[in-house]
Amino acid sequence: MTQPAFSTLTQFRALLTGFSGADQSALEAATERNGQLTKPPGALGRLEELALWMAAWQGVEKPAINSPQIIIFAGNHGITAQGVSAFPAEVTVQMVGNFASGGAAINQLAKAYGARLDVHALDLETPTADFTQAPAMTEAEFVAALQKGWAAVDPASDLLVTGEMGIGNTTSAAAIAAALLGGTGADWVGRGTGVDDNGLSIKARVVDQGLARHADILTDSLQVLRCLGGRELAAMAGAVAAARHHKIPVLMDGFICTSACATLAFAQKGALDHVQAAHLSAEGAHGRLLAALEKSPILSLNMRLGEGSGAALAIGVLQGAVACHSGMATFAEAAVSAGG
Amino acid sequence: MTQPAFSTLTQFRALLTGFSGADQSALEAATERNGQLTKPPGALGRLEELALWMAAWQGVEKPAINSPQIIIFAGNHGITAQGVSAFPAEVTVQMVGNFASGGAAINQLAKAYGARLDVHALDLETPTADFTQAPAMTEAEFVAALQKGWAAVDPASDLLVTGEMGIGNTTSAAAIAAALLGGTGADWVGRGTGVDDNGLSIKARVVDQGLARHADILTDSLQVLRCLGGRELAAMAGAVAAARHHKIPVLMDGFICTSACATLAFAQKGALDHVQAAHLSAEGAHGRLLAALEKSPILSLNMRLGEGSGAALAIGVLQGAVACHSGMATFAEAAVSAGG
Repeated sequence: MTQPAFSTLTQFRALLTGFSGADQSALEAATERNGQLTKPPGALGRLEELALWMAAWQGVEKPAINSPQIIIFAGNHGITAQGVSAFPAEVTVQMVGNFASGGAAINQLAKAYGARLDVHALDLETPTADFTQAPAMTEAEFVAALQKGWAAVDPASDLLVTGEMGIGNTTSAAAIAAALLGGTGADWVGRGTGVDDNGLSIKARVVDQGLARHADILTDSLQVLRCLGGRELAAMAGAVAAARHHKIPVLMDGFICTSACATLAFAQKGALDHVQAAHLSAEGAHGRLLAALEKSPILSLNMRLGEGSGAALAIGVLQGAVACHSGMATFAEAAVSAGG
Repeated sequence: MTQPAFSTLTQFRALLTGFSGADQSALEAATERNGQLTKPPGALGRLEELALWMAAWQGVEKPAINSPQIIIFAGNHGITAQGVSAFPAEVTVQMVGNFASGGAAINQLAKAYGARLDVHALDLETPTADFTQAPAMTEAEFVAALQKGWAAVDPASDLLVTGEMGIGNTTSAAAIAAALLGGTGADWVGRGTGVDDNGLSIKARVVDQGLARHADILTDSLQVLRCLGGRELAAMAGAVAAARHHKIPVLMDGFICTSACATLAFAQKGALDHVQAAHLSAEGAHGRLLAALEKSPILSLNMRLGEGSGAALAIGVLQGAVACHSGMATFAEAAVSAGG
């Protein structure tokens, strides 16, 4: 066991502050290469932008996806007792079993795109505290979850997807979004896995109670993650921070993942420069949250499953982008006339 | 060499009229399966719809993509003499060479998604007639191109992408769209591979001249394809018709491919039921053409390359959709509690 990269929240903050940027010389080399490939300038659209982003963060002219890693973090939430989900809390541990036996959507997507899949169940027998009553996590619990997320990232992977499983966690995500961006529960809650109108109004009330209870910490995004989040959200934030440390590009999943990532961006401007929004989820507030982060989703397929499924799907798109950039011939190599 | 499926345009029309629909019992079985998979109902969004469509056209409860075929047809256009493209007409044959040596974008995408790639150069030394002066093709040339497209489809493939290469062919596509849906050249032309404002106004004028020259056949969509299209557009239409005959689902590429396919839909309602719009191209009029066909694009990545590249990229998405549908566990298999 290596020494953890940080032992306190203060040390984690210092890591965020010290992040460096992408490799500018790799970006320049890749940009020059892109201009010479056998296609009209810009004809591959977003694929070109994605390939250049990959080049910049992998630090090479010709990026590749040889060892993508998908990590799912699972956590349980005290607020489920209030009826915020259409599914019982037992489903969290049942789905962890489904991940282990290969039966979930993310298992199929990981296999389809050749990604390694790791699943970390985070103290499922001890749900976080009900955030309408107390902070979801103590500082020690929060730091432990951040550490687990950080340590879960394989420094040798060349692309990271983080996903989550946690009955009740769209309510946590909505509370975090409201804390960071303002508004009430009603502005940010959605139907999650499928609550009815009554469930929706319960979610809004729970968020409002959480915001009121923790009013004194709402300007500190990492405290927001601690008090309103959950272990799997904290672990995703820790993993995305570790990816930045290791210069691993990240595909960000839906509303819950985005809310966890947002706390990093609010703690340190530019902390998500190595992150692309993989998709726009069907959860209504996701688009507004992405817009606030100035992220444009690659896919928009009305998905709302979690598990990292939307981001895993975008691995397939990114594979195409990288294959074109790194494999195409230049005009000179192919003896094709350039346009004019 | 087997007997061609049709020898005259009249016989081709009869084939379109006789097309049968998807396999309703496979669709029902797949729909029932989808409702039992370990996810909230509908949580995979568009992926669920795509998997059910694949099941219906492959005629199985659990669809698969084991042998996808990408076919590129290349043709030359008499209208290039009028200055409708930013690239010289020689680029068509040069790009065919680039396909053969594996240097083009579509080569990389075919490899990335495990698809077979076939390239058919259609009489490149004999461009179609300038459609402002005469029909682009004689009826014999048109039927020959439809036949080549039809024969290019491997009946054993389980998914088809058709692509094209033909300097000048966005102008043909715009002329076809205007003929089918009304409006003038200016309503339907775009920058294609990158023409300037002058090139754009030339394209609009060429389309208007083509519409005036062939005013007497504009209500017959297959005659529109013959008079304003090109060999690669006719071949794509022939291939998409063959796919329907063989019950092979099709991912439709961008503006040029869509205009060719549209002539089938205008000839026979429902002729594109086995077709999904793979992407929304950057060519401005593509969205309106898709809307007229009631097709919603899977991807929207600002691509405008042709070569079947947008549709090839969507193979990756479809692989994910099919993998989830056919590989996931049911609630009963995984002992996961269903929502309520």
